[in-house]
Amino acid sequence: MEVIERRVWIATPTDAPVVAGLLHDFNREFGEATPPVGELAERVAQLIELGRIVVLLGGDGPDGVAVLRFRDALWSWDLECYLAELYVVPHRRGRGIGRSIMEAAIHEARCRGAVTMDIGVDEPDIVARHLYESLGFSNRTGENDEAVMYVYEREL
Amino acid sequence: MEVIERRVWIATPTDAPVVAGLLHDFNREFGEATPPVGELAERVAQLIELGRIVVLLGGDGPDGVAVLRFRDALWSWDLECYLAELYVVPHRRGRGIGRSIMEAAIHEARCRGAVTMDIGVDEPDIVARHLYESLGFSNRTGENDEAVMYVYEREL
Repeated sequence: MEVIERRVWIATPTDAPVVAGLLHDFNREFGEATPPVGELAERVAQLIELGRIVVLLGGDGPDGVAVLRFRDALWSWDLECYLAELYVVPHRRGRGIGRSIMEAAIHEARCRGAVTMDIGVDEPDIVARHLYESLGFSNRTGENDEAVMYVYEREL
Repeated sequence: MEVIERRVWIATPTDAPVVAGLLHDFNREFGEATPPVGELAERVAQLIELGRIVVLLGGDGPDGVAVLRFRDALWSWDLECYLAELYVVPHRRGRGIGRSIMEAAIHEARCRGAVTMDIGVDEPDIVARHLYESLGFSNRTGENDEAVMYVYEREL
Protein backbone atom coordinates (compact mmCIF):
# COMPACT_ATOMS: atom_id res chain seq x y z
CA MET A 1 0.00 0.00 0.00
CA GLU A 2 1.32 3.37 -0.99
CA VAL A 3 1.90 5.69 1.90
CA ILE A 4 0.01 8.87 1.19
CA GLU A 5 1.89 11.97 2.25
CA ARG A 6 -0.56 14.28 3.98
CA ARG A 7 1.76 16.47 5.98
CA VAL A 8 0.78 20.13 5.75
CA TRP A 9 2.82 23.02 7.13
CA ILE A 10 2.78 26.80 7.26
CA ALA A 11 5.31 28.32 4.87
CA THR A 12 7.98 30.72 6.15
CA PRO A 13 9.74 33.34 4.00
CA THR A 14 12.46 30.78 3.21
CA ASP A 15 9.77 28.62 1.50
CA ALA A 16 8.96 31.50 -0.87
CA PRO A 17 10.79 30.03 -3.90
CA VAL A 18 8.91 26.72 -3.74
CA VAL A 19 5.62 28.54 -3.08
CA ALA A 20 6.28 30.78 -6.07
CA GLY A 21 7.11 27.75 -8.23
CA LEU A 22 3.78 26.13 -7.42
CA LEU A 23 1.81 29.36 -7.92
CA HIS A 24 3.60 29.97 -11.21
CA ASP A 25 2.68 26.47 -12.44
CA PHE A 26 -0.89 27.10 -11.28
CA ASN A 27 -1.37 30.17 -13.41
CA ARG A 28 0.48 28.66 -16.37
CA GLU A 29 -1.77 25.60 -16.27
CA PHE A 30 -4.92 27.75 -16.35
CA GLY A 31 -3.63 30.25 -18.90
CA GLU A 32 -3.45 33.14 -16.44
CA ALA A 33 -0.71 35.76 -16.48
CA THR A 34 2.09 35.29 -13.96
CA PRO A 35 5.33 37.16 -13.28
CA PRO A 36 8.62 35.20 -13.50
CA VAL A 37 9.15 32.79 -10.57
CA GLY A 38 11.96 34.90 -9.06
CA GLU A 39 9.83 38.01 -8.92
CA LEU A 40 6.87 36.09 -7.53
CA ALA A 41 9.14 34.56 -4.86
CA GLU A 42 10.19 38.05 -3.75
CA ARG A 43 6.56 39.11 -3.43
CA VAL A 44 5.58 35.92 -1.59
CA ALA A 45 8.48 36.33 0.86
CA GLN A 46 7.52 39.95 1.49
CA LEU A 47 3.83 39.18 2.08
CA ILE A 48 4.59 36.24 4.40
CA GLU A 49 7.04 38.37 6.33
CA LEU A 50 4.52 41.21 6.71
CA GLY A 51 1.82 38.74 7.77
CA ARG A 52 -0.34 39.75 4.80
CA ILE A 53 -0.71 36.16 3.59
CA VAL A 54 -0.65 32.77 5.29
CA VAL A 55 0.60 30.03 2.98
CA LEU A 56 0.11 26.30 3.52
CA LEU A 57 2.22 23.68 1.76
CA GLY A 58 1.36 19.99 1.51
CA GLY A 59 2.77 16.76 0.14
CA ASP A 60 6.31 15.54 -0.37
CA GLY A 61 7.28 17.84 -3.24
CA PRO A 62 5.69 19.87 -1.77
CA ASP A 63 2.89 19.21 -4.22
CA GLY A 64 0.18 21.61 -3.14
CA VAL A 65 -0.27 25.13 -1.88
CA ALA A 66 -2.99 27.33 -0.42
CA VAL A 67 -2.90 31.08 0.18
CA LEU A 68 -5.08 32.59 2.88
CA ARG A 69 -5.90 36.25 3.43
CA PHE A 70 -7.47 37.64 6.58
CA ARG A 71 -9.52 40.78 7.05
CA ASP A 72 -11.22 42.28 10.08
CA ALA A 73 -14.91 41.45 10.01
CA LEU A 74 -17.21 44.47 9.85
CA TRP A 75 -20.20 42.87 11.55
CA SER A 76 -18.30 41.45 14.51
CA TRP A 77 -14.96 41.79 16.27
CA ASP A 78 -13.63 38.65 14.58
CA LEU A 79 -11.72 38.00 11.38
CA GLU A 80 -12.89 36.74 8.01
CA CYS A 81 -10.69 34.47 5.90
CA TYR A 82 -10.49 34.52 2.12
CA LEU A 83 -8.95 31.53 0.36
CA ALA A 84 -7.11 33.27 -2.47
CA GLU A 85 -5.40 30.25 -4.08
CA LEU A 86 -5.47 26.45 -3.89
CA TYR A 87 -3.37 24.28 -6.18
CA VAL A 88 -2.09 20.72 -6.38
CA VAL A 89 0.36 19.68 -9.13
CA PRO A 90 -1.32 17.56 -11.83
CA HIS A 91 0.62 14.31 -11.29
CA ARG A 92 -0.19 14.24 -7.55
CA ARG A 93 -3.92 14.89 -7.73
CA GLY A 94 -6.50 12.43 -6.42
CA ARG A 95 -4.43 11.54 -3.36
CA GLY A 96 -6.14 13.77 -0.83
CA ILE A 97 -3.45 16.43 -0.78
CA GLY A 98 -5.90 19.23 -1.60
CA ARG A 99 -8.29 17.99 1.08
CA SER A 100 -5.51 17.79 3.68
CA ILE A 101 -4.41 21.33 2.84
CA MET A 102 -8.00 22.59 3.05
CA GLU A 103 -8.58 20.87 6.40
CA ALA A 104 -5.40 22.46 7.72
CA ALA A 105 -6.43 25.82 6.25
CA ILE A 106 -9.78 25.68 8.02
CA HIS A 107 -8.06 24.75 11.28
CA GLU A 108 -5.49 27.53 10.89
CA ALA A 109 -8.15 30.12 10.03
CA ARG A 110 -10.17 29.15 13.10
CA CYS A 111 -7.07 29.35 15.33
CA ARG A 112 -6.36 32.86 14.05
CA GLY A 113 -9.88 34.00 14.94
CA ALA A 114 -11.68 33.81 11.60
CA VAL A 115 -15.40 33.00 11.74
CA THR A 116 -16.04 32.63 8.00
CA MET A 117 -14.09 31.52 4.95
CA ASP A 118 -14.96 32.55 1.39
CA ILE A 119 -13.63 31.38 -1.96
CA GLY A 120 -14.13 32.42 -5.58
CA VAL A 121 -14.52 29.39 -7.86
CA ASP A 122 -15.06 29.13 -11.62
CA GLU A 123 -18.09 27.08 -12.67
CA PRO A 124 -16.03 24.49 -14.65
CA ASP A 125 -13.70 23.72 -11.71
CA ILE A 126 -15.83 20.72 -10.78
CA VAL A 127 -13.14 18.94 -8.75
CA ALA A 128 -12.49 22.01 -6.62
CA ARG A 129 -16.23 22.67 -6.22
CA HIS A 130 -16.85 19.10 -5.04
CA LEU A 131 -13.97 19.38 -2.59
CA TYR A 132 -15.33 22.64 -1.16
CA GLU A 133 -18.88 21.26 -1.00
CA SER A 134 -17.67 18.13 0.79
CA LEU A 135 -16.01 20.42 3.33
CA GLY A 136 -19.23 22.30 4.05
CA PHE A 137 -18.84 25.26 1.67
CA SER A 138 -21.86 26.39 -0.33
CA ASN A 139 -22.45 28.76 -3.24
CA ARG A 140 -26.18 28.93 -2.43
CA THR A 141 -28.09 31.59 -0.54
CA GLY A 142 -31.68 32.48 0.30
CA GLU A 143 -34.03 30.87 2.79
CA ASN A 144 -34.15 27.62 0.83
CA ASP A 145 -30.76 27.88 -0.85
CA GLU A 146 -32.66 28.80 -3.98
CA ALA A 147 -30.12 31.24 -5.40
CA VAL A 148 -26.40 31.17 -6.15
CA MET A 149 -23.79 33.75 -5.25
CA TYR A 150 -21.64 35.22 -8.03
CA VAL A 151 -18.24 36.84 -8.09
CA TYR A 152 -18.26 40.02 -10.18
CA GLU A 153 -14.95 41.60 -11.04
CA ARG A 154 -13.23 44.09 -13.32
CA GLU A 155 -9.82 45.56 -13.87
CA LEU A 156 -9.45 49.15 -12.78
CA MET B 1 -36.63 69.51 -12.33
CA GLU B 2 -35.54 67.82 -9.15
CA VAL B 3 -31.94 68.37 -8.29
CA ILE B 4 -30.35 64.98 -7.79
CA GLU B 5 -27.84 64.90 -4.97
CA ARG B 6 -24.83 63.00 -6.18
CA ARG B 7 -22.19 64.19 -3.78
CA VAL B 8 -20.05 61.31 -2.51
CA TRP B 9 -17.44 61.60 0.21
CA ILE B 10 -15.03 59.45 2.18
CA ALA B 11 -16.26 58.81 5.71
CA THR B 12 -14.09 59.71 8.69
CA PRO B 13 -14.38 58.09 12.14
CA THR B 14 -16.86 60.82 13.14
CA ASP B 15 -19.21 59.54 10.40
CA ALA B 16 -19.23 56.09 12.01
CA PRO B 17 -22.71 56.43 13.61
CA VAL B 18 -24.39 57.31 10.30
CA VAL B 19 -22.41 54.59 8.48
CA ALA B 20 -23.47 52.09 11.12
CA GLY B 21 -27.10 53.21 10.80
CA LEU B 22 -27.09 52.57 7.06
CA LEU B 23 -25.31 49.20 7.39
CA HIS B 24 -27.72 48.17 10.14
CA ASP B 25 -30.71 49.02 7.89
CA PHE B 26 -29.02 47.10 5.07
CA ASN B 27 -28.79 43.86 7.00
CA ARG B 28 -32.23 44.30 8.56
CA GLU B 29 -33.77 44.77 5.10
CA PHE B 30 -32.18 41.56 3.81
CA GLY B 31 -32.82 39.50 6.93
CA GLU B 32 -29.15 39.23 7.88
CA ALA B 33 -27.89 39.35 11.46
CA THR B 34 -26.50 42.67 12.65
CA PRO B 35 -25.18 43.92 15.98
CA PRO B 36 -26.91 46.94 17.58
CA VAL B 37 -26.13 50.24 15.82
CA GLY B 38 -23.97 51.52 18.70
CA GLU B 39 -21.73 48.48 18.65
CA LEU B 40 -21.48 48.55 14.87
CA ALA B 41 -20.55 52.25 15.02
CA GLU B 42 -17.69 51.46 17.38
CA ARG B 43 -16.37 48.79 15.02
CA VAL B 44 -16.74 51.05 11.96
CA ALA B 45 -14.90 53.90 13.72
CA GLN B 46 -12.10 51.53 14.71
CA LEU B 47 -11.69 50.05 11.22
CA ILE B 48 -11.74 53.49 9.53
CA GLU B 49 -9.20 54.77 12.02
CA LEU B 50 -6.89 51.78 11.45
CA GLY B 51 -7.25 52.15 7.68
CA ARG B 52 -8.74 48.66 7.41
CA ILE B 53 -11.84 49.88 5.56
CA VAL B 54 -12.56 52.82 3.28
CA VAL B 55 -16.18 53.94 3.50
CA LEU B 56 -17.96 56.12 0.94
CA LEU B 57 -21.17 57.98 1.74
CA GLY B 58 -23.51 59.47 -0.85
CA GLY B 59 -26.73 61.49 -1.08
CA ASP B 60 -28.27 64.09 1.23
CA GLY B 61 -29.21 61.80 4.09
CA PRO B 62 -26.63 60.43 3.48
CA ASP B 63 -28.67 57.79 1.66
CA GLY B 64 -26.07 55.33 0.51
CA VAL B 65 -22.89 53.67 1.66
CA ALA B 66 -20.10 51.52 0.25
CA VAL B 67 -17.38 49.69 2.16
CA LEU B 68 -14.08 48.94 0.44
CA ARG B 69 -11.33 46.57 1.58
CA PHE B 70 -7.84 46.51 0.13
CA ARG B 71 -5.33 43.68 0.07
CA ASP B 72 -1.85 43.39 -1.38
CA ALA B 73 -1.98 41.61 -4.71
CA LEU B 74 -0.03 38.36 -4.84
CA TRP B 75 0.66 38.40 -8.58
CA SER B 76 1.93 41.98 -8.74
CA TRP B 77 3.15 44.76 -6.46
CA ASP B 78 -0.24 46.48 -6.59
CA LEU B 79 -3.38 46.31 -4.47
CA GLU B 80 -6.66 44.51 -5.03
CA CYS B 81 -9.94 46.04 -3.89
CA TYR B 82 -12.92 44.10 -2.56
CA LEU B 83 -16.29 45.86 -2.43
CA ALA B 84 -17.66 44.44 0.81
CA GLU B 85 -20.94 46.37 1.03
CA LEU B 86 -23.11 48.65 -1.12
CA TYR B 87 -26.45 49.98 0.08
CA VAL B 88 -28.91 52.75 -0.78
CA VAL B 89 -31.95 53.36 1.44
CA PRO B 90 -35.19 52.14 -0.22
CA HIS B 91 -36.97 55.52 -0.59
CA ARG B 92 -33.98 57.08 -2.40
CA ARG B 93 -33.32 54.34 -4.93
CA GLY B 94 -33.48 54.91 -8.68
CA ARG B 95 -31.84 58.32 -8.46
CA GLY B 96 -28.31 57.34 -9.39
CA ILE B 97 -26.96 57.43 -5.84
CA GLY B 98 -25.63 53.87 -6.02
CA ARG B 99 -24.02 54.57 -9.39
CA SER B 100 -22.39 57.78 -8.08
CA ILE B 101 -21.03 55.92 -5.08
CA MET B 102 -19.70 53.12 -7.28
CA GLU B 103 -18.05 55.57 -9.69
CA ALA B 104 -16.39 57.29 -6.74
CA ALA B 105 -15.39 53.90 -5.29
CA ILE B 106 -13.70 52.89 -8.55
CA HIS B 107 -11.91 56.23 -8.68
CA GLU B 108 -10.81 55.95 -5.06
CA ALA B 109 -9.62 52.35 -5.49
CA ARG B 110 -7.56 53.36 -8.54
CA CYS B 111 -6.04 56.31 -6.67
CA ARG B 112 -4.99 53.98 -3.84
CA GLY B 113 -3.20 51.67 -6.26
CA ALA B 114 -5.75 48.89 -6.77
CA VAL B 115 -5.72 47.19 -10.16
CA THR B 116 -8.82 45.00 -9.74
CA MET B 117 -12.12 45.21 -7.87
CA ASP B 118 -14.20 42.17 -6.92
CA ILE B 119 -17.69 41.86 -5.47
CA GLY B 120 -19.86 39.01 -4.20
CA VAL B 121 -23.45 39.33 -5.44
CA ASP B 122 -26.50 37.15 -4.87
CA GLU B 123 -28.23 35.94 -8.03
CA PRO B 124 -31.60 37.64 -7.21
CA ASP B 125 -30.01 41.09 -6.69
CA ILE B 126 -30.86 42.05 -10.24
CA VAL B 127 -30.64 45.81 -9.71
CA ALA B 128 -27.16 45.55 -8.21
CA ARG B 129 -26.04 43.11 -10.90
CA HIS B 130 -27.23 45.45 -13.66
CA LEU B 131 -25.44 48.35 -12.00
CA TYR B 132 -22.18 46.38 -11.75
CA GLU B 133 -22.50 45.11 -15.33
CA SER B 134 -23.12 48.64 -16.63
CA LEU B 135 -19.90 49.67 -14.85
CA GLY B 136 -17.86 46.99 -16.59
CA PHE B 137 -17.96 44.24 -13.97
CA SER B 138 -18.54 40.68 -15.12
CA ASN B 139 -19.32 37.37 -13.43
CA ARG B 140 -18.16 35.45 -16.52
CA THR B 141 -14.85 33.75 -17.16
CA GLY B 142 -13.25 31.51 -19.77
CA GLU B 143 -12.02 32.37 -23.24
CA ASN B 144 -15.53 33.12 -24.49
CA ASP B 145 -17.06 34.13 -21.18
CA GLU B 146 -18.76 30.73 -21.22
CA ALA B 147 -18.67 30.11 -17.47
CA VAL B 148 -19.71 32.00 -14.36
CA MET B 149 -17.71 32.55 -11.18
CA TYR B 150 -19.24 31.51 -7.87
CA VAL B 151 -18.68 32.57 -4.30
CA TYR B 152 -18.40 29.59 -1.97
CA GLU B 153 -18.47 30.20 1.76
CA ARG B 154 -18.95 28.58 5.13
CA GLU B 155 -18.85 29.46 8.77
CA LEU B 156 -15.84 28.19 10.67
